[in-house]
Amino acid sequence: MRLDDIGEFGLIERIRRSFAAPSQRAPIGIGDDAAALCVSPGHTLLATTDMLVEGVHFDLATTDLYSLGWKSAAVNLSDIAAMGGTPRFCMTALAIPRRITVERIAAFYRGLHAIARKHGVVLVGGDTCSSKRDLVISIAMLGEARRKKIVTRSGARPGDLVYVTGTLGDSGAGLELVRSSKSGNLRQKTDVRKLIERHLRPVPRVAWGRMLAESGSVSAMIDVSDGLSSDLGHLCEESGVGAEITGDRIPLSRSLRRATGLRQNILDYALSGGEDYELLFTVPPRREKTIPGFGIDATNIGVVTKGRSLRFIDDMGSVRLLQASGYDHFKVSRRGRAR
Amino acid sequence: MRLDDIGEFGLIERIRRSFAAPSQRAPIGIGDDAAALCVSPGHTLLATTDMLVEGVHFDLATTDLYSLGWKSAAVNLSDIAAMGGTPRFCMTALAIPRRITVERIAAFYRGLHAIARKHGVVLVGGDTCSSKRDLVISIAMLGEARRKKIVTRSGARPGDLVYVTGTLGDSGAGLELVRSSKSGNLRQKTDVRKLIERHLRPVPRVAWGRMLAESGSVSAMIDVSDGLSSDLGHLCEESGVGAEITGDRIPLSRSLRRATGLRQNILDYALSGGEDYELLFTVPPRREKTIPGFGIDATNIGVVTKGRSLRFIDDMGSVRLLQASGYDHFKVSRRGRAR
Repeated sequence: MRLDDIGEFGLIERIRRSFAAPSQRAPIGIGDDAAALCVSPGHTLLATTDMLVEGVHFDLATTDLYSLGWKSAAVNLSDIAAMGGTPRFCMTALAIPRRITVERIAAFYRGLHAIARKHGVVLVGGDTCSSKRDLVISIAMLGEARRKKIVTRSGARPGDLVYVTGTLGDSGAGLELVRSSKSGNLRQKTDVRKLIERHLRPVPRVAWGRMLAESGSVSAMIDVSDGLSSDLGHLCEESGVGAEITGDRIPLSRSLRRATGLRQNILDYALSGGEDYELLFTVPPRREKTIPGFGIDATNIGVVTKGRSLRFIDDMGSVRLLQASGYDHFKVSRRGRAR
Repeated sequence: MRLDDIGEFGLIERIRRSFAAPSQRAPIGIGDDAAALCVSPGHTLLATTDMLVEGVHFDLATTDLYSLGWKSAAVNLSDIAAMGGTPRFCMTALAIPRRITVERIAAFYRGLHAIARKHGVVLVGGDTCSSKRDLVISIAMLGEARRKKIVTRSGARPGDLVYVTGTLGDSGAGLELVRSSKSGNLRQKTDVRKLIERHLRPVPRVAWGRMLAESGSVSAMIDVSDGLSSDLGHLCEESGVGAEITGDRIPLSRSLRRATGLRQNILDYALSGGEDYELLFTVPPRREKTIPGFGIDATNIGVVTKGRSLRFIDDMGSVRLLQASGYDHFKVSRRGRAR
């Protein structure tokens, strides 16, 4: 069905019907000039926004709309997770070209709803408009946290240990594979499928972020959206410190280790691939022993240093400066990354 | 200067430096994964978002970037105003094509900042990314209000009086004039300039909205973004009522009355032009006498009816059904409207 069959307000009505009725937390949701939302007493509001642009962040030849809806919410959930917050509400603004059908937009919202529901997040409003050419998605995510438990990027101190959750590089490798497998049957292989899945439907570490923040054991935190080198750079810059990372400690998945036909050294996907949406955090040495007790999958990959540089120790023990080599929207011409 | 000279993070740093440092209300602003914001005790959060797309909502041949920044914030401020709230924070997500210079983006933020500052609104975060073709702007605006004072679209009852603030139709006429005056000197005329100004830099009725909401005299409210016929339609639909509007009571500015060379009947700009960002509200008869006391510029243009239709009485006393003739993003091919 074409969008002009149901019109803008028909579309809004469909979205509204598919989502929950007004709740105690969101007494006014979709359908008024603004949503009215309740922040828990004693809590501070967290707010973030991320935009995904066709031809820049995604290619409709390699992603389905369900995955795109999922991912659009996931990248924002990851930002709330990196503050140690609980996500609560989201708003979607979509600029939709004529070639996109009502069914595909419905799939987008199903994907978004699937991950939102997992985290108790309610869609409370948005905007839908036409676009001459590209599909553009902008999501605003609102969450909450107790003020004193919020973890920023700026609290890392020399001597703190650097940790990262899960594994890195899968998404970057998955992006390369999804492009090269457009018409092939490469996707049939389990490892390839896993890497592509991590690229198309990333899993934000919301529960882990909250647990780490609540523990008080973490001095700084950021999510890995641009790539380890860039995001570690952001964290160190905000904290006024440097870091030293040991290459062979960087956690890589079995799928990435076994994947064949990749163009780069697999460590490069971890360092500059981005879009893993893992959490990168620092822990003061006196709190180090508490980390295993949280039962989360986290690996110590290095240490915070006083000097402002980022240093990388390779498997031969040589030290080199680590350049922030993740995605910069205006400086590079690479395509296909969401931040 | 080209954006690739300073890069994405250079741009973010410039925006960050141009805006205020963290405050008590926004202890964490631009530069972290999410902003941390304080909602006043006893208040409910209001949240809204609006997207503006090049070639759909605006044409860079007829608007400057300063005006575009102003307008992007104004349309969102108007939504908070229509709930009777106080705007507090905003986030900007921009997809920027390569042809846009750093200076033009700086002008966008100056315009946005100029109107935000008037209303005590702080820019607390956002996202900047590249775009292959069109400039796309998405703003999320957060405000607050006391729960019991919030005015929705759904409270209008038969017999309530229909009011509108200011004058209608200027923006729609201004849009037509700004297009036809691209290369001419039509813009020199004061009336034309005023109409164009109302189109390019609308003034949201934030103080009036709050005053009306605080008074408790208003049963329903909406801002006029799509055009009187459409927005009255939305309000009536949400309230489960109809309305009867008297054509010659619709307030029209002196500039609109005097403008020459317009293609439509001037009343048509008021009914379906949209983008006036005035407030349309309903008042129970027993509260009617309180309205003049607020000292706001508001005109009674009709009455809420039990039947669900919208009726229009023309200057000959004939009654006709009013069709919602404002902008629908997917149903019509007209261009150049922000909602």
